[in-house]
Amino acid sequence: MKKPLILVTNDDGITAPGIRALVDVASQIGEVVVVAPDSPQSGMGHAITVSDPIRLHPAKVFEGIEAFECSGTPVDCVKLAKHVVLKDRVADICISGINHGSNASINIIYSGTLSAAMEASLEGIPSIGFSLLDYSHDANFEAAKPFIKELIEWVLENGMTEGNLLNVNIPNLAREEIKGLKVCRQAEARWVEEFSEAEDPRGQKYYWLTGRFVNKDTGDDTDVVALENGYISVVPSMHDLTHYSAIDKVKDIENISI
Amino acid sequence: MKKPLILVTNDDGITAPGIRALVDVASQIGEVVVVAPDSPQSGMGHAITVSDPIRLHPAKVFEGIEAFECSGTPVDCVKLAKHVVLKDRVADICISGINHGSNASINIIYSGTLSAAMEASLEGIPSIGFSLLDYSHDANFEAAKPFIKELIEWVLENGMTEGNLLNVNIPNLAREEIKGLKVCRQAEARWVEEFSEAEDPRGQKYYWLTGRFVNKDTGDDTDVVALENGYISVVPSMHDLTHYSAIDKVKDIENISI
Repeated sequence: MKKPLILVTNDDGITAPGIRALVDVASQIGEVVVVAPDSPQSGMGHAITVSDPIRLHPAKVFEGIEAFECSGTPVDCVKLAKHVVLKDRVADICISGINHGSNASINIIYSGTLSAAMEASLEGIPSIGFSLLDYSHDANFEAAKPFIKELIEWVLENGMTEGNLLNVNIPNLAREEIKGLKVCRQAEARWVEEFSEAEDPRGQKYYWLTGRFVNKDTGDDTDVVALENGYISVVPSMHDLTHYSAIDKVKDIENISI
Repeated sequence: MKKPLILVTNDDGITAPGIRALVDVASQIGEVVVVAPDSPQSGMGHAITVSDPIRLHPAKVFEGIEAFECSGTPVDCVKLAKHVVLKDRVADICISGINHGSNASINIIYSGTLSAAMEASLEGIPSIGFSLLDYSHDANFEAAKPFIKELIEWVLENGMTEGNLLNVNIPNLAREEIKGLKVCRQAEARWVEEFSEAEDPRGQKYYWLTGRFVNKDTGDDTDVVALENGYISVVPSMHDLTHYSAIDKVKDIENISI
């Protein structure tokens, strides 16, 4: 049987330990092609590079694995992977991560990791974004690996839903403490920002984004709750932002005349 | 009666003609505060600046209007507007645009204009992203203005739906040719990319993103169809990306064990 073709990307950059862990897992399952940013791109959301040229170079980072580093955003990486690197080859799955830090709940909209996976999903490729709840560079991905392997194999075997995208977050626990996987919805949470204000050496003010995550959601079927209870959260996600239940509520707008 | 406080932003930058048109309209309705990027930020999606300081300066761009230019992304602008500029003042509405070019259908996920509006919606502020289907710098916003004014007043009077976000696209037509407003859903369309490949003066290859918009959606209730028929499209939108109907379909993932 032909081995599946697995496209791997991330947003922490091609040298991050998280993508190395993901390549380790993927290479046990299939043929791996990596196209990832040449520098960290956290918080890039679904940004694309429209006003600048993008560079793409072969990268000897993973032994025996075809890999490229890209000067663009995570979404640019996926676009270049499909149209320049893979061309006539079609990826059976795209996996993004493992992100250093949570992408549960509202983090999905800021996340380069998940936006890269979403971009692949738009191309009809089943896609999964993986994140570990540990922001540190030295995060330990070992406990996560066997779960990630099983989940990739499950998707390759069973296919994906219409949205083609899973947002998977993994609690920062030892393997025996992880209770299993929970399919859930995105919690209604947000970041409450504060800005650190300071002066540069020339006396000019600048601001630095900081903040804390606040979960306003009281439901028990959310990714945040699953993670708090020691489960890996799996949220089927999609790119259609239409608020369907609101369409009737604002229908009166059609009566506006000038 | 107290005049409403209207926060205005965009992604084409504070000197773009589109935001000037929006400020013109807004200042007929209420008190206006502008916080917008100091340079073009198209295609920035929901990017935020996490690894760099952000600058914010008062900008004398609009006569008699409180305005600030910001070195960050459109989403950064909204965060700084709320936490540094407005502080205890609460915006009654946030309007973003008028974007030079369409943000209908899948464009919403790449759009800095809509991401800025979505960020304000997360803060509980009713928000509208406005876009005119003309990419040129010299786009004519006059026909759009009276419709935009009526729509802002409608939202201020009637409130918004739970998602707090409307994606409004305006066909590039003369006023008498615009047939009215249509509440609709996001069309299932995507960009088919090509990359322009070239060599720089040092002989190094680079890539430039290009592509064409392809509508795969056969429904007649979409924003793309409304626009083609001469209507202004209004799509109630939201930040919850959960694919609810898929939750049951992938429930078997919970049976994965290692």
